[in-house]
Amino acid sequence: MASYWGKHIHISIFGQSHSTAIGVTIDGLPAGESIDLDALSFFLKRRAPGNSSFSTPRKEADFPEFLCGMVNDITCGAPLTAMIHNTNTRSQDYSKLKDCPRPAHADYTAHMKYRGYQDVAGGGHFSGRLTAPLCIAGGICLQILSRYGIEIGAHIASVGSVFDTPFSPLGETEDTFAQLKSSSFPVMDEKTGTDMKAVIETARNQGDSVGGVVECMAMGLPVGLGNPMFEGLESRLASMLFSIPAVKGVEFGAGFESATLFGSQNNDPFYLDGSTVRTRTNHSGGILGGISNGMPLLLRAAFKPTPSISKEQQSISLSQQKNIPLNIVGRHDPCIVPRAVPVVEAAVAIVLLDALLDRNTDQINKTN
Amino acid sequence: MASYWGKHIHISIFGQSHSTAIGVTIDGLPAGESIDLDALSFFLKRRAPGNSSFSTPRKEADFPEFLCGMVNDITCGAPLTAMIHNTNTRSQDYSKLKDCPRPAHADYTAHMKYRGYQDVAGGGHFSGRLTAPLCIAGGICLQILSRYGIEIGAHIASVGSVFDTPFSPLGETEDTFAQLKSSSFPVMDEKTGTDMKAVIETARNQGDSVGGVVECMAMGLPVGLGNPMFEGLESRLASMLFSIPAVKGVEFGAGFESATLFGSQNNDPFYLDGSTVRTRTNHSGGILGGISNGMPLLLRAAFKPTPSISKEQQSISLSQQKNIPLNIVGRHDPCIVPRAVPVVEAAVAIVLLDALLDRNTDQINKTN
Amino acid sequence: MASYWGKHIHISIFGQSHSTAIGVTIDGLPAGESIDLDALSFFLKRRAPGNSSFSTPRKEADFPEFLCGMVNDITCGAPLTAMIHNTNTRSQDYSKLKDCPRPAHADYTAHMKYRGYQDVAGGGHFSGRLTAPLCIAGGICLQILSRYGIEIGAHIASVGSVFDTPFSPLGETEDTFAQLKSSSFPVMDEKTGTDMKAVIETARNQGDSVGGVVECMAMGLPVGLGNPMFEGLESRLASMLFSIPAVKGVEFGAGFESATLFGSQNNDPFYLDGSTVRTRTNHSGGILGGISNGMPLLLRAAFKPTPSISKEQQSISLSQQKNIPLNIVGRHDPCIVPRAVPVVEAAVAIVLLDALLDRNTDQINKTN
Amino acid sequence: MASYWGKHIHISIFGQSHSTAIGVTIDGLPAGESIDLDALSFFLKRRAPGNSSFSTPRKEADFPEFLCGMVNDITCGAPLTAMIHNTNTRSQDYSKLKDCPRPAHADYTAHMKYRGYQDVAGGGHFSGRLTAPLCIAGGICLQILSRYGIEIGAHIASVGSVFDTPFSPLGETEDTFAQLKSSSFPVMDEKTGTDMKAVIETARNQGDSVGGVVECMAMGLPVGLGNPMFEGLESRLASMLFSIPAVKGVEFGAGFESATLFGSQNNDPFYLDGSTVRTRTNHSGGILGGISNGMPLLLRAAFKPTPSISKEQQSISLSQQKNIPLNIVGRHDPCIVPRAVPVVEAAVAIVLLDALLDRNTDQINKTN
Repeated sequence: MASYWGKHIHISIFGQSHSTAIGVTIDGLPAGESIDLDALSFFLKRRAPGNSSFSTPRKEADFPEFLCGMVNDITCGAPLTAMIHNTNTRSQDYSKLKDCPRPAHADYTAHMKYRGYQDVAGGGHFSGRLTAPLCIAGGICLQILSRYGIEIGAHIASVGSVFDTPFSPLGETEDTFAQLKSSSFPVMDEKTGTDMKAVIETARNQGDSVGGVVECMAMGLPVGLGNPMFEGLESRLASMLFSIPAVKGVEFGAGFESATLFGSQNNDPFYLDGSTVRTRTNHSGGILGGISNGMPLLLRAAFKPTPSISKEQQSISLSQQKNIPLNIVGRHDPCIVPRAVPVVEAAVAIVLLDALLDRNTDQINKTN
Repeated sequence: MASYWGKHIHISIFGQSHSTAIGVTIDGLPAGESIDLDALSFFLKRRAPGNSSFSTPRKEADFPEFLCGMVNDITCGAPLTAMIHNTNTRSQDYSKLKDCPRPAHADYTAHMKYRGYQDVAGGGHFSGRLTAPLCIAGGICLQILSRYGIEIGAHIASVGSVFDTPFSPLGETEDTFAQLKSSSFPVMDEKTGTDMKAVIETARNQGDSVGGVVECMAMGLPVGLGNPMFEGLESRLASMLFSIPAVKGVEFGAGFESATLFGSQNNDPFYLDGSTVRTRTNHSGGILGGISNGMPLLLRAAFKPTPSISKEQQSISLSQQKNIPLNIVGRHDPCIVPRAVPVVEAAVAIVLLDALLDRNTDQINKTN
Repeated sequence: MASYWGKHIHISIFGQSHSTAIGVTIDGLPAGESIDLDALSFFLKRRAPGNSSFSTPRKEADFPEFLCGMVNDITCGAPLTAMIHNTNTRSQDYSKLKDCPRPAHADYTAHMKYRGYQDVAGGGHFSGRLTAPLCIAGGICLQILSRYGIEIGAHIASVGSVFDTPFSPLGETEDTFAQLKSSSFPVMDEKTGTDMKAVIETARNQGDSVGGVVECMAMGLPVGLGNPMFEGLESRLASMLFSIPAVKGVEFGAGFESATLFGSQNNDPFYLDGSTVRTRTNHSGGILGGISNGMPLLLRAAFKPTPSISKEQQSISLSQQKNIPLNIVGRHDPCIVPRAVPVVEAAVAIVLLDALLDRNTDQINKTN
Repeated sequence: MASYWGKHIHISIFGQSHSTAIGVTIDGLPAGESIDLDALSFFLKRRAPGNSSFSTPRKEADFPEFLCGMVNDITCGAPLTAMIHNTNTRSQDYSKLKDCPRPAHADYTAHMKYRGYQDVAGGGHFSGRLTAPLCIAGGICLQILSRYGIEIGAHIASVGSVFDTPFSPLGETEDTFAQLKSSSFPVMDEKTGTDMKAVIETARNQGDSVGGVVECMAMGLPVGLGNPMFEGLESRLASMLFSIPAVKGVEFGAGFESATLFGSQNNDPFYLDGSTVRTRTNHSGGILGGISNGMPLLLRAAFKPTPSISKEQQSISLSQQKNIPLNIVGRHDPCIVPRAVPVVEAAVAIVLLDALLDRNTDQINKTN
């Protein structure tokens, strides 16, 4: 088990889908940063279910309780812990679920790893609900980064085989980011959005689900975030992004496409824009040698379709040791991608704030 | 700087392209494991340059010197350090290179991060040459894993737009792995290999380079490797793979393709094969909830084209603060993908041995 | 800030003296361990204030709320979080305290580190109250260790200049440990205890405080816990013990006394007790080369006197930049040593459970 | 095994007493720091054996070879690796030693932990010789710290029952530090030094050894180094100091003595010295709440007597499972304390440089 992450911004996530509460402790936030709780609430609502017909109707408690780490909504240097109480917990009988692992879920691997002692209710600690505390941590980091000129935006890059207009690798405007953040279905091209919704509606009607891709960009990064080798920005970001349930692929800049290119196509030429060093293209996604180069950071994360579907599936009975069909009841997100957009923003924000603080250790700075 | 990685198998990589030596310290190898130095030598040669016309003709010293960590070629529990001396170091004048960063290299970001103090010769610590110590560590891990029934194989999945036959997600034979390991240009389909070589030859003749993808599979993994969230197998593997220079994308199982699928297509049905739980398809790539499920582990890493090309490129003079053209002299790999194949195997082996040891901590096992 | 610790048993402590709540998340507890909440409650009461006239009369809420990590009081593999609500928080005016740092407290260093944003109320995150979550974590570890044959006991070794009979380095009986655990003033020699209480009473009556030493022993340890160098048992234990507020010295076995001895006096001769290897003396405190040797683990931690005293002290006004006298009002523990006994036990238990799991990684153990 | 340490200054130590080489990789040194190799050589000679009649006559190769991490003796940001070749390695028959563990050495615990695969020659990885790479790392840190106004000094505080004049807790002069560093037997009071030498000579003549204490002080520290709880300065320093072979006790400021004091005696009153906040006494040793307060850092480490003595001792035969007498041949340091003085300085320097860099992460500092 390692539900903690980070060198400077150290987050420790706790909770199961149906435990008394879920939450996060963030250790290492600089003291003196005010947190706008209304803005945070707005951010968390973007991830919350039930915002539209495209997500599960389950209602989550709206807002976390802050247990410590702030004085008058200003960080005090001590670890900050936020908690969300779970309601209606553990009311069902989960013995069936325990015996018959759901395909593409963690039921079977958890059963083997924890020898039957895992919390099966609602997926336990593996539930997508645990992205809520990640969003609390990330939402706070987003506010702090913004204060230092770093803005993060994301959109639904694809649902199934419907692809949105991608971000311009050379950067997007603040207006574009603001518009995406205000939308419950953030896309660059509204027409595409309509097509995506149709695909999701079709999946829902067939008791099925569908996957998609989230594209994310960070602008205003200084040069020098990240390190060579194992703490390169790509390594850190990928490590965080693959922690989000259902992510099966991560790429930076031109990503997998760059593998099809010639060097003369893929290399980004340098030029001077006044005294600022920039590149004319941005196939690197703003990262060279694991280190930010001042151009926009660009990445994409691929989400598999929601594993929970109503269609009958084939599985096994662990107790009877035989193959059996499985019918999952209840309603589930036919596509988690819209709700995953703020989760990706949050994940990226945590990594970037950690990297921003890490850069401070490149030099000695002693003043008594 | 963080050129170290790992919780149980802790590797610390050192050296610059033209420093006296490069090498690696591996801390945490279990005592009592014999290391076959001939087999290791054979493995390292797969990465070494000059093996074929498809790589740079620079000759590397063939074999590392082992400084400590073994007694009679058997691990003794103490950290194992291996070193490769660099020859012909620092003979040139690198002042030009220092002033004019090469596109798609780390020259510029290193210059900014280390304020001009970085070692520019041959790319310094950012050089692809530093994958040699990674291969020493990984080659040792591969031997140990094999002893416990875990085999890792990889091939060139694509070069430019030429695609090899992919691995069967349900597993490959040991023969196939053995054949790939014995080849200087490991592909599943020889005809495809011929086409790939033609693409590389074209790139070379044009003073250009080309990218590609490496696909890697691990067979024989027990159920239960990895953890939920931040130490999930995908997070650990991606963190390691993105540490390899030029990797810009990583995906597991169906990866980005799974984002285009419906749940009913992507979910892998469980069934019993005797008393063994297996899945009928393997879109998950052998990982559910960050934890191995016993099916083959399958991943792909996308490599951008070698940044060093002979064609004239646009860059800047840092001292004169103006745009200037850049012509890189010397010969370089027109395609690093063939040599990257064992590097990916090595990277995966390190992570899996670390995860195998980590699984031991799931239970208390006290015997006096 | 780093209020987290551990490699396998990873604890993350949160809260300030007067925040909404304090607590701890424990990540890495093996699944399937039942937790006896009554026994835990009894253990926590040993640390709680107000148990006797020798501690501060402030009443703490008796028992933590468990937010997650257990199903039916059995660990489920997910992080376990326990929380204690603070009552009557933030009711006072702390502006005076903020301006005038208390001698021997962290007020001044916190003020400088957090630039005035620290939570001053009750000492904030530096409060001794934060040893309550440490005891929750440690109390759970103690239960698990006991199940595997490892018992930890501790007593008040000294208060001021009154010294209790030390533990026999070769081991104590379970009865002795049980008796110490049941006492609100745990000493080996009741007569000495009476003298200690008199010293504390004198300190209290003079508005003063007094320091002391806690001696702790762990029995039943297997050989092989710990590692050479930086993860030696002594290093890990000391790192944890010095995290307890007021600890200013730590020693193992003969400790500082061993510095006065000759080798022929200090070396512990080996002998065979049946097939068990033992030593005739135990100056090493059960640790050789950072690794447990199977003899009782023995250590002592020195606690400075409680910094809060009623007697007038000299301090400064930070705002007025001048020297001023300081009178601390309120009642405080005249001696924290009695309450520190279970805290030391808890600290030692966490480190030993971590080390017990770590030992599992010495060998590969693969079974599918 | 964990022979690595550190968050920002990450050291990884390798080698066994009789392996091909021993050494250290230091990852995280800021780029641009020039290293005075002559000064480093002088520092390493203070630890080297054979400097006087008070240490073992074995001659060590004088100076490390630097493999990487510097360009023209200036750090370049890449990991710095230094190596010392061992000469005359593995020439003897160590089978006897393997069978009969030496009292107070790590022979037995290593045998059990590594199941007989450990390198027994000369103590393997547990040898005091491994403090040489620690001194390389520390010697470099000392040079850098000095450049930023932080000076570290140490002396032999006691040998057996002979006690040197202690450091003044309020600070020593640079002259005093310089004098101590230039002496092969660093004491404050020469007369005491003569008495100590007599004790050592007596031990040697009797085939015995004797322990002692090293006292160390760091001056010029800024306020704010360290953190509350588990990364407090005391925790970090103790974790490092207990990694030095033979250390059995560590205390800060008044240490164990403070446990005998009343609060009114132990509390250090604050006062203003111009605009500088100071304390009138320094029982805290310069650390409050785990954080430096700007006063001199003061600590003591207790070293047990060298375990290797010529006098016959009692041990066991592991193969024959019986008690046998043991006679250790060869010459050994009758007292390691004089040579331990620079080792303690080195250890403290590494921790303090790490803490100095860590303090940079207390605030965000973004400049593009």
